[in-house]
Amino acid sequence: MPSRVLNGIAASDGVAIAESYRLVDPDLSFDKVKISDVNAQATRLSAALVASKRELAQIKEHAIQTMGEDEATVFDAHLAILSDPEMIRQIVKQIRDQRVSAEEALTVVTDSYVKLFENMQDNPYMRERSGDIRDVTKRVLAHLLGVELPNPALIDHEVIVVAHDLTPSDTAQLDRRFVKGFITDIGGRTSHSAIMSRTLEIPAVVGTKEATSLIEDGQPLILDGIHGQAILQPTSTERQEYHDMAIDYQTQRIEWQKLQDKPSVTKDGVHHVLAANIGTPEDLTAVKTNGAEGVGLFRSEFLYMNANNWPTEDDQFEAYRTVVQGMAGKPVVVRTMDIGGDKGLPYLDMPKEMNPFMGYRAIRISLSKTAIFRTQLRALLRASAYGDLGIMFPMIATLDEFRSAKRITKEEHQKLLDDDVPVGDPQLGIMVEVPAAAILADQFAKEVDFMSIGTNDLIGYSMAADRTNERVSYLYQPYNPAILRLIKHVIDACHQEGKIAAMCGEMAGDQLAVPILVGMGLDEFSMSATSILKTRALFRRLDSAKMAVLADKAIHAGTNEEVIKLVDEFVF
Amino acid sequence: MPSRVLNGIAASDGVAIAESYRLVDPDLSFDKVKISDVNAQATRLSAALVASKRELAQIKEHAIQTMGEDEATVFDAHLAILSDPEMIRQIVKQIRDQRVSAEEALTVVTDSYVKLFENMQDNPYMRERSGDIRDVTKRVLAHLLGVELPNPALIDHEVIVVAHDLTPSDTAQLDRRFVKGFITDIGGRTSHSAIMSRTLEIPAVVGTKEATSLIEDGQPLILDGIHGQAILQPTSTERQEYHDMAIDYQTQRIEWQKLQDKPSVTKDGVHHVLAANIGTPEDLTAVKTNGAEGVGLFRSEFLYMNANNWPTEDDQFEAYRTVVQGMAGKPVVVRTMDIGGDKGLPYLDMPKEMNPFMGYRAIRISLSKTAIFRTQLRALLRASAYGDLGIMFPMIATLDEFRSAKRITKEEHQKLLDDDVPVGDPQLGIMVEVPAAAILADQFAKEVDFMSIGTNDLIGYSMAADRTNERVSYLYQPYNPAILRLIKHVIDACHQEGKIAAMCGEMAGDQLAVPILVGMGLDEFSMSATSILKTRALFRRLDSAKMAVLADKAIHAGTNEEVIKLVDEFVF
Repeated sequence: MPSRVLNGIAASDGVAIAESYRLVDPDLSFDKVKISDVNAQATRLSAALVASKRELAQIKEHAIQTMGEDEATVFDAHLAILSDPEMIRQIVKQIRDQRVSAEEALTVVTDSYVKLFENMQDNPYMRERSGDIRDVTKRVLAHLLGVELPNPALIDHEVIVVAHDLTPSDTAQLDRRFVKGFITDIGGRTSHSAIMSRTLEIPAVVGTKEATSLIEDGQPLILDGIHGQAILQPTSTERQEYHDMAIDYQTQRIEWQKLQDKPSVTKDGVHHVLAANIGTPEDLTAVKTNGAEGVGLFRSEFLYMNANNWPTEDDQFEAYRTVVQGMAGKPVVVRTMDIGGDKGLPYLDMPKEMNPFMGYRAIRISLSKTAIFRTQLRALLRASAYGDLGIMFPMIATLDEFRSAKRITKEEHQKLLDDDVPVGDPQLGIMVEVPAAAILADQFAKEVDFMSIGTNDLIGYSMAADRTNERVSYLYQPYNPAILRLIKHVIDACHQEGKIAAMCGEMAGDQLAVPILVGMGLDEFSMSATSILKTRALFRRLDSAKMAVLADKAIHAGTNEEVIKLVDEFVF
Repeated sequence: MPSRVLNGIAASDGVAIAESYRLVDPDLSFDKVKISDVNAQATRLSAALVASKRELAQIKEHAIQTMGEDEATVFDAHLAILSDPEMIRQIVKQIRDQRVSAEEALTVVTDSYVKLFENMQDNPYMRERSGDIRDVTKRVLAHLLGVELPNPALIDHEVIVVAHDLTPSDTAQLDRRFVKGFITDIGGRTSHSAIMSRTLEIPAVVGTKEATSLIEDGQPLILDGIHGQAILQPTSTERQEYHDMAIDYQTQRIEWQKLQDKPSVTKDGVHHVLAANIGTPEDLTAVKTNGAEGVGLFRSEFLYMNANNWPTEDDQFEAYRTVVQGMAGKPVVVRTMDIGGDKGLPYLDMPKEMNPFMGYRAIRISLSKTAIFRTQLRALLRASAYGDLGIMFPMIATLDEFRSAKRITKEEHQKLLDDDVPVGDPQLGIMVEVPAAAILADQFAKEVDFMSIGTNDLIGYSMAADRTNERVSYLYQPYNPAILRLIKHVIDACHQEGKIAAMCGEMAGDQLAVPILVGMGLDEFSMSATSILKTRALFRRLDSAKMAVLADKAIHAGTNEEVIKLVDEFVF
């Protein structure tokens, strides 16, 4: 069998050579038949339940060892469902009364539970249970049908995971010691699989369209995350070639590691700040080992999403202070609550919207629920006494919105001062992700302390394309000259008023975009911690004056493709 | 009782003084009780069915007289449901078996039908039936509960309709002779109610928030669509005052009518084309009576939406030729299929999208389903032999998209020439509604023959706000300086390359925006036919040089509100 090349999108650097592991559900369909032997079906059900319990206990045991008690509790819920006497009684009754197979009886009864729980709109706990019941039903059904479900938690040797797409719950079950790479059918550089792979520092190729249809389980596979390729059934020559490439990449990584404490300067000595985007205080370790000069984006959502009710002022204060103190004087920019769009909260009754990305979200919620906003601002203001903290408002579209947010912040600042609570004097900035704000950047620059460009949404709105929608993801074009013009306008506007221009979207760490952004004079690049050293290394190869010429040519180009060619010409 | 003023958004000009008519469903809830006398409930059901049939027959008769046989067929479907013996048998059985009231039995049985029909995803006819069953059930339930449903088709005296919002099916039932105005709780200038009121040329005030909670049925009411106000229980002085205002407005309309054949020029003699937006060939009458100089936007969707399958090349050709010939040499711009977003087709299996406005729509569909696109282009090319026809591609985001659309058009053009089919040489343009295309207008201007700015979507994407979403509709800001800058850039780019810059969104007929657009030198204003004469009158009051100063001040302003003040200062 000759080797075969699969092309996709390079989503995370590195090279892996390992066996494939298909994280793909098998066919669980069955024929509906009238059965004659009721007892035989009840016995089959029983056996499948026992086998499922045994399997789950084993997975749970393994999960405790590899991921800890907390992560493994989900399997307790699954085990409890398998032992629910009322549900089992109903399934057996269904077999007897309707003379259907164990498969059909199981599906009918569990479906009714799922529907019941899903309709409990007000009870997020119950709604979550419906997901558990689905998972467990799948497992029992697999045992009844004699097919094998993938059990990623049980992986015990090095593999490259092959999937249609990876969801957060898929990746939560993976043992990070053994997973050497991802390859998926769909997704782009900003999909969950891609971001997760960069966080784990493993190579990933996404959007191959046919990975799951071409790659069988346990096949030898080479994954080249640098060029966005995979090789099935590699020849020994190819193995050798990529083995060498992997070593080169490792060598390069070691070289990059030497830059941990070096300044972030271009070949001609111009300094640009390299900062990290973080989601929780735990991310600080990677921030330090990768030599970040600050935190350019601290997403405060984790406080809201990992809770059963609005987080208190004190809880928030502790989290913000931990990060500010952890950064020991280096700047930390905290973004206020960015809920809505695709991020809901179990305790916030959000209206069903036709276009949530263009709906009630982020600062729009904060400005209409000011009690919640004020609580967050007070926590931030108190934390600002402990270091260099900046407050950033997301999804600002109009000057009025920024003025309202600023006024409310100043009011809380004064109240804290009046009560003799220690506070700093944090800088107030906006995240530039709504096209109207980018276009009016010169007006905003007069009133804000800093701006940080959020490219993910800015590109989406500017191209009128939802990047999570496969059918239009080709329009998510970071190098489109229209996008580059908006970015340049924001940078120029900031400099005109002596303000800092930063970027905290995926694009800030994109090696094709960095040379253009250097040419435009972007002050701060904030990215996944794992991209920082690579970017610092890239800086050292770039000449500012030459990059300014590149940037100028890029904004006068016609298409995304033309810009990619220009970068190739000027840099690589 | 003193008079009371209600404020809202001025959605359609004019003044009306009439009784209110509440188009609001009454409370149709009922208690679930165990009944003892089964026969009594069956008799109640019977009586309610008879009464509903009598009422529907009356409505149908009335509808035939006022709207014609075609519009009245919906009531035949309703009458058929009321006579369905199987459904009635099931409701009676439900009363007997479950010992529930006629109300509850009716609801249970009809709900099961509705669900059944709604699940027939592949059958649009059946899905529509579920809507009919809902309507009929409501009527029978009202009779059972002894409450009155609004029967708009039976209105026989002049009224002002009061509603939470108006749907297309609500307005279809209204007798246009008697409806003198609309007032609604929600909506903005671009909601269905607002657009419909301008088409009907009756005043409308929308977004009052509390019209339905404050206004009772049959109350005296003044509706001032010029200032966006309503007066409940007006005093005799107020009646006189508004009566005079209504007369003034009528006088003004008569004055405007005199401009039907006059040139569209400013005070200093600069000509701007005033064109009309149309949806079907039938709209041509209004185009002519309002003195339009062309059709700036012919929406081709009606061909697709009023059909059970893709329209044929010949069907389309006939429609396009009718319009082109009807305009007798004046230019007609036809927009290719703009399906998707909020517009689906029964015979097109569209994926369920999380954000349809940012999804698979318009040119994105055409370029991926080229057989359908080629059919439309051939029909357009053939029609172009009969007059001045331009082809406009909607939702263009990148140069590549325009280039592909142009290449396909040229291919079909050549094929028709090879087959000796008569064709013209239509101009090819783009609708500028995606921010990226507006930003890159200078590049587009080199390749297209014309551009027409679609402000509705352009504003939505630029502000990242879905204008149909009440919670963020405040961000739909046509005068926001960011929007004005995009528009100016498009106009300047066109002029730089000697191309025509047009506008076909709602903004082109917005009396506050027109002075700014004149100042920017917009070549063509395309709008609802009913706004043309008013705009021609406005042109005559404007001085181009002074408006250029206004436009310059507007793009350097900070907020929507500041721009409104500037226009007031410069014009009114």
